[in-house]
Amino acid sequence: MTASIFDAFLTPPAIAEVFGERAVVAHMLDFEAALARAQAEEGVIPAGAADAIAASCDVALYDPAALVSGASRAGSLAIPLITALRAQVARHDADAAQHVHHASTSQDAIDTAAVLATRRALALIDAELAALSEALLGLAQAHAATPVLARTLMQPAGVASFGLKCIRWTAPVVRARQRMREAAVRALVLQLGGPTGLYGADDARAVAVGRRMATALKLGVAPMPWHTQRDEWVRLGSEVAVVAGSLSKIATDLSLMAQGEVGELAEPAVGPDGRRRGGSSALAHKRNPVSAMVAIAACRLVPARAASVLASMAQEHERGLGTWHAELAEWPGLFTGLYAAAQALREAFEGLEVDARRMHRHIDEAFGARIDVDGDVRRAASLVGHDALALRDAIEHLAPPPWSTD
Amino acid sequence: MTASIFDAFLTPPAIAEVFGERAVVAHMLDFEAALARAQAEEGVIPAGAADAIAASCDVALYDPAALVSGASRAGSLAIPLITALRAQVARHDADAAQHVHHASTSQDAIDTAAVLATRRALALIDAELAALSEALLGLAQAHAATPVLARTLMQPAGVASFGLKCIRWTAPVVRARQRMREAAVRALVLQLGGPTGLYGADDARAVAVGRRMATALKLGVAPMPWHTQRDEWVRLGSEVAVVAGSLSKIATDLSLMAQGEVGELAEPAVGPDGRRRGGSSALAHKRNPVSAMVAIAACRLVPARAASVLASMAQEHERGLGTWHAELAEWPGLFTGLYAAAQALREAFEGLEVDARRMHRHIDEAFGARIDVDGDVRRAASLVGHDALALRDAIEHLAPPPWSTD
Amino acid sequence: MTASIFDAFLTPPAIAEVFGERAVVAHMLDFEAALARAQAEEGVIPAGAADAIAASCDVALYDPAALVSGASRAGSLAIPLITALRAQVARHDADAAQHVHHASTSQDAIDTAAVLATRRALALIDAELAALSEALLGLAQAHAATPVLARTLMQPAGVASFGLKCIRWTAPVVRARQRMREAAVRALVLQLGGPTGLYGADDARAVAVGRRMATALKLGVAPMPWHTQRDEWVRLGSEVAVVAGSLSKIATDLSLMAQGEVGELAEPAVGPDGRRRGGSSALAHKRNPVSAMVAIAACRLVPARAASVLASMAQEHERGLGTWHAELAEWPGLFTGLYAAAQALREAFEGLEVDARRMHRHIDEAFGARIDVDGDVRRAASLVGHDALALRDAIEHLAPPPWSTD
Amino acid sequence: MTASIFDAFLTPPAIAEVFGERAVVAHMLDFEAALARAQAEEGVIPAGAADAIAASCDVALYDPAALVSGASRAGSLAIPLITALRAQVARHDADAAQHVHHASTSQDAIDTAAVLATRRALALIDAELAALSEALLGLAQAHAATPVLARTLMQPAGVASFGLKCIRWTAPVVRARQRMREAAVRALVLQLGGPTGLYGADDARAVAVGRRMATALKLGVAPMPWHTQRDEWVRLGSEVAVVAGSLSKIATDLSLMAQGEVGELAEPAVGPDGRRRGGSSALAHKRNPVSAMVAIAACRLVPARAASVLASMAQEHERGLGTWHAELAEWPGLFTGLYAAAQALREAFEGLEVDARRMHRHIDEAFGARIDVDGDVRRAASLVGHDALALRDAIEHLAPPPWSTD
Repeated sequence: MTASIFDAFLTPPAIAEVFGERAVVAHMLDFEAALARAQAEEGVIPAGAADAIAASCDVALYDPAALVSGASRAGSLAIPLITALRAQVARHDADAAQHVHHASTSQDAIDTAAVLATRRALALIDAELAALSEALLGLAQAHAATPVLARTLMQPAGVASFGLKCIRWTAPVVRARQRMREAAVRALVLQLGGPTGLYGADDARAVAVGRRMATALKLGVAPMPWHTQRDEWVRLGSEVAVVAGSLSKIATDLSLMAQGEVGELAEPAVGPDGRRRGGSSALAHKRNPVSAMVAIAACRLVPARAASVLASMAQEHERGLGTWHAELAEWPGLFTGLYAAAQALREAFEGLEVDARRMHRHIDEAFGARIDVDGDVRRAASLVGHDALALRDAIEHLAPPPWSTD
Repeated sequence: MTASIFDAFLTPPAIAEVFGERAVVAHMLDFEAALARAQAEEGVIPAGAADAIAASCDVALYDPAALVSGASRAGSLAIPLITALRAQVARHDADAAQHVHHASTSQDAIDTAAVLATRRALALIDAELAALSEALLGLAQAHAATPVLARTLMQPAGVASFGLKCIRWTAPVVRARQRMREAAVRALVLQLGGPTGLYGADDARAVAVGRRMATALKLGVAPMPWHTQRDEWVRLGSEVAVVAGSLSKIATDLSLMAQGEVGELAEPAVGPDGRRRGGSSALAHKRNPVSAMVAIAACRLVPARAASVLASMAQEHERGLGTWHAELAEWPGLFTGLYAAAQALREAFEGLEVDARRMHRHIDEAFGARIDVDGDVRRAASLVGHDALALRDAIEHLAPPPWSTD
Repeated sequence: MTASIFDAFLTPPAIAEVFGERAVVAHMLDFEAALARAQAEEGVIPAGAADAIAASCDVALYDPAALVSGASRAGSLAIPLITALRAQVARHDADAAQHVHHASTSQDAIDTAAVLATRRALALIDAELAALSEALLGLAQAHAATPVLARTLMQPAGVASFGLKCIRWTAPVVRARQRMREAAVRALVLQLGGPTGLYGADDARAVAVGRRMATALKLGVAPMPWHTQRDEWVRLGSEVAVVAGSLSKIATDLSLMAQGEVGELAEPAVGPDGRRRGGSSALAHKRNPVSAMVAIAACRLVPARAASVLASMAQEHERGLGTWHAELAEWPGLFTGLYAAAQALREAFEGLEVDARRMHRHIDEAFGARIDVDGDVRRAASLVGHDALALRDAIEHLAPPPWSTD
Repeated sequence: MTASIFDAFLTPPAIAEVFGERAVVAHMLDFEAALARAQAEEGVIPAGAADAIAASCDVALYDPAALVSGASRAGSLAIPLITALRAQVARHDADAAQHVHHASTSQDAIDTAAVLATRRALALIDAELAALSEALLGLAQAHAATPVLARTLMQPAGVASFGLKCIRWTAPVVRARQRMREAAVRALVLQLGGPTGLYGADDARAVAVGRRMATALKLGVAPMPWHTQRDEWVRLGSEVAVVAGSLSKIATDLSLMAQGEVGELAEPAVGPDGRRRGGSSALAHKRNPVSAMVAIAACRLVPARAASVLASMAQEHERGLGTWHAELAEWPGLFTGLYAAAQALREAFEGLEVDARRMHRHIDEAFGARIDVDGDVRRAASLVGHDALALRDAIEHLAPPPWSTD
């Protein structure tokens, strides 16, 4: 709820746009256009009506802010939008207006629009994760044999290599890309049930309408309407939360290694835009780990959102009262949080400064001569080599993403 | 995170504005102006500098969106704002610019601005709760002797009166207004610690600066800086979550009594703006309980936000890395959710339709002659009478709200 | 934390035993025995030592309560257990005692024991879900053409059949069984990293030890130690939470249809043990929906546990401080909650009473002659027929469960 | 749900006992005895019956485990207990048995028993907080002038004193003791509403029964039954969560200062029982911060429990279905978590090792000659002196705790 100024820096513009008014209204209009065209192709509504409807399904013809305002009164964004769409169609073809939204329901349009927006969000996230894993893999190989303390329970426990830390940070990022594909294939499906979930029952043409719409929108077809059985959808949301958890571990380690007294890592002093990052309003010399800060903050908000989405699964009967609405309200935050964290970490690791001398000094202070640094580092490096091959292979064999609509 | 279209109807404009860019930047400028004036009055900075600074602390001189964009890079809204403020002051008085933000720190300005915004949010919420409790009290008295089923574990358990249900819904709303005042007195305090929390140490003038600022901003003074010991602040947030919980009970009962098969209550068919509420995109005759829907959805999001705020209390050292940011990012959602729920319920109960015949019919169906309806209703009515007096008395004796700044 | 009396009825004994002291200590001993045997087979420790160790890995030789007490002091259950195991081995073979727990670490034993316990929990849950889906499928087919209101936003929206409600409740239960298998295959893997995560590095024998142990324990092998990259493990936990969400929807619908005023469904009056269920301490005639109550309560606790587990993914360095411990502490609650809910619903639906007349009456009251009941029911029944075939097929083709260790 | 072995070390026996079977059954019997006695004193039931009932209200006469087992079937602990109590009374006085639980209901007995258990939990927690604040105050005064880095965003930001850190850790602990008293006064009240919440309506004797019971049980009297308006109760739960949040900050700072590379603090190597703490199963020399670990883990579980309790406030009608049960199931975890954390930190700070040289070294490394250490430390020490006086004064003037029943 509410985009306040306090979370502005956790909401990169690219992802905010995806779930914004204009984009989602456009997706709802995509749904209505696809519905009309498919129904016309199946002879359910006249072809001319479908043309008139599709021609009116251009978001530039509507005022999204006014629709949102109407939605507050109606309790649903679909009601003012369908009204406005009918009026728009009627201007050119009064008869066609009667075929708008035929046999469908609010939830069909809204859920499908949410699917379409989510697909775009996943593409944005995947690109950041890809770049992050490249940066991490590069560091892993460059520092395969750079000794660093292994720390358990936040105490020195032995020696490993910084490359090994990097490769182990990488693995869940690569897995994330694969698991997100798997969850997305199942969740990015058309919603089409009609007012009571009977759409397509005992009606071959209606079934065909669904198939045609899915093809047109490049979505999958669900075995049955999923309006109140939202498990595959929530699995995708949970997957996003798991990935944010994996990033939270990287961000936490970064923050610990960048502590002043540790000083093994530092975030880049200059951002991709060439401007200084991480300054202080009071202390000119200070260099703050802003990427870790953003990633930690963003990831900290995700588990609560995942919990809200899970709790909203108790959807009453054939459309939840408040539960459906709570889920959708919470949904974008999952993707925004993950994207913000991924972007921040990608920026940090693409320009990371590694102080190998500090790393060695901490080993000396903790263990002195009591430890076989060379032997342990050689072992760590051998793991890095092995795992880097496996991860590069996994990246090459990632499933084709369902969010690529080319 | 992110104001998406999906939570638009859970974010009434009045409360969105309170935590929006322009309002919070204005509050940060209020802080800087008060700081400069108080420091001048104590002779810490020149009086002329304070005048020049205060004259530049007008939000109309700045572009909040640009500041927010700068904040993403810097990791703090204060950094671009102080830079912009210094530049603005320097245009008229280069020397005064050096006294901007003297001895203070980002967190002082941001936390205090959050306090000032929160104060406004509480005033909005309190007004809705006041109107809601009036509507409920009115119904309680009108229906003190209207028999209704008492239901335990969602089964008929006996007879009470609808007025008794109303008066028991009212009690926590009245308590909420008092408890929110108590928590607010402790939480609506100035933040002033300087870069490391030492501001005011061994320095009578600095202590006096704090007192003067608090007076100017009509805030309380904390016994010590609360930047990382945020328990009183979080108590206020938790209080808001408790109040949302109390409203969730009312909304749930409303939704159950408004079910088609129960039909004891109905939300008003027409809104305060004279337009139809709760229509359906597919079924013309349907009347949806949109107030219950909004209140249920809004309240469902609040516990997760309270959990995030609680979890963020593990603030590291003298300023948390990500924890502070997560708390502030989550903070507005608590107030937005409560406000949306209170407003929705107030609208529902101000125009509530009560079907006393349906209420009686359900008693007959459940118990027939096996129950002494008149006796139980008389007992219920006596409780209503007693409790209504007590609640009216409590309303009259509410503490003066710390959010009234007149 | 704490098994209080207040959650006793949400903690069926069968699942409580799985995560109890004795069972988990036994699993830790399974780990130690498998480790010793595998190391002996690879020539890392003497064969005789492995025999002596394995002979001592019998939980009957230890006092789990005393170990738990020792764990509080040490901060780890493994420390007192390894000490006790060494002492036990030393009684017969002092030399063998030195080979106990060789090259391993606390977390290896504890995580692997958690995996073994989780495997048993999944088997229990799967059996309940299987029985629940059978009961639901049976009802779906028996009531394929029993008209019932379709309700959206808790208002009558049209007509469907009770069988259609049942088949749509069933679908996520069947999917759950398949998705749990998929997540379990990835999560039920050996943990073996040694003190700093280097176990197996550059050491073919150590790699072979891991493979042998996995075979012996009938577990999978992870591509690398997962001690601090716990995403596949958390995915399994999240999957359990999603399934609980699917059950919460069924329980909510049951509670709504069993309301006194609705009365379309009733839970069985007598339990499988032949004793009366759902009585009241005050009202002799009352029949409470105790299965819905248990399932709702159990499912309500799950999202918060999932959030805690997700939040605990920010594991510091090579073993989290408190984060690992919080995750494990929260873990059993996910499985307990789901099992309690599944068992309660299975009991309810195996003996469900359906009042088709009440269902029809509500349609009449809502729509009268304005609706084509027969047509809609015929359509609903056709969906039931189609979906029942698909679900039976899905059940037959479920993947072999990784929790079957026969 | 479920006390697994994995949370055993987060559940100290003293607090586990408070919410255990035997203690809570005893409290329910306390309720029944007080009810009978008060009703006899008001002439509602015969005096002899009250004597017979009270004589049977001895927990030693019952098998708590069997009652819990019966509760699973009945869905309420009160049902088997009242049955057993009636049978026990009837053995001596068949007539008296009919007066058992007169005009009351399950929820009255269970809620009041929960109140009585909670009162004991608060007393345990308060004692730990008192000892913790003493330990912290002692350290604050001993180290008022021990220089330490002030760190913001986990970077060196200036100089303060370790005493100042301690005194700021102390303040919320002292506030906690006061706020817990305030919340407890309002929450530790008798529940007495009868089956439908009408108990006491229009019946002076029934009102007097409530007053007598409250006096006998040393509880407050609520203005009306709070069975479904549980805001004051939940405020107490939220307060406990806030206090856990305050402790989580202390534990986090401790963990950061005890890191190997920082080494400014160390937990005592030997526990109060004279045995070694914090060992490692793999590394003999390692000293793990087990108090920080326990406190961090315990506090991490609390926000999710607070969220569940808040979400459960949507109690349906006159007794929630599953919501009431979820709240009670979650309730003990709040207190257990806080107690475990308080105890662990108290143990750590009572024997804390402070390395002032390491503290100074970190200042030198961060700032060298660029900072006025002496000046800043003098300022910090002056704050410590001032705040220590204020906190000692606050401790002396703590309100009398409602959990003292002497």
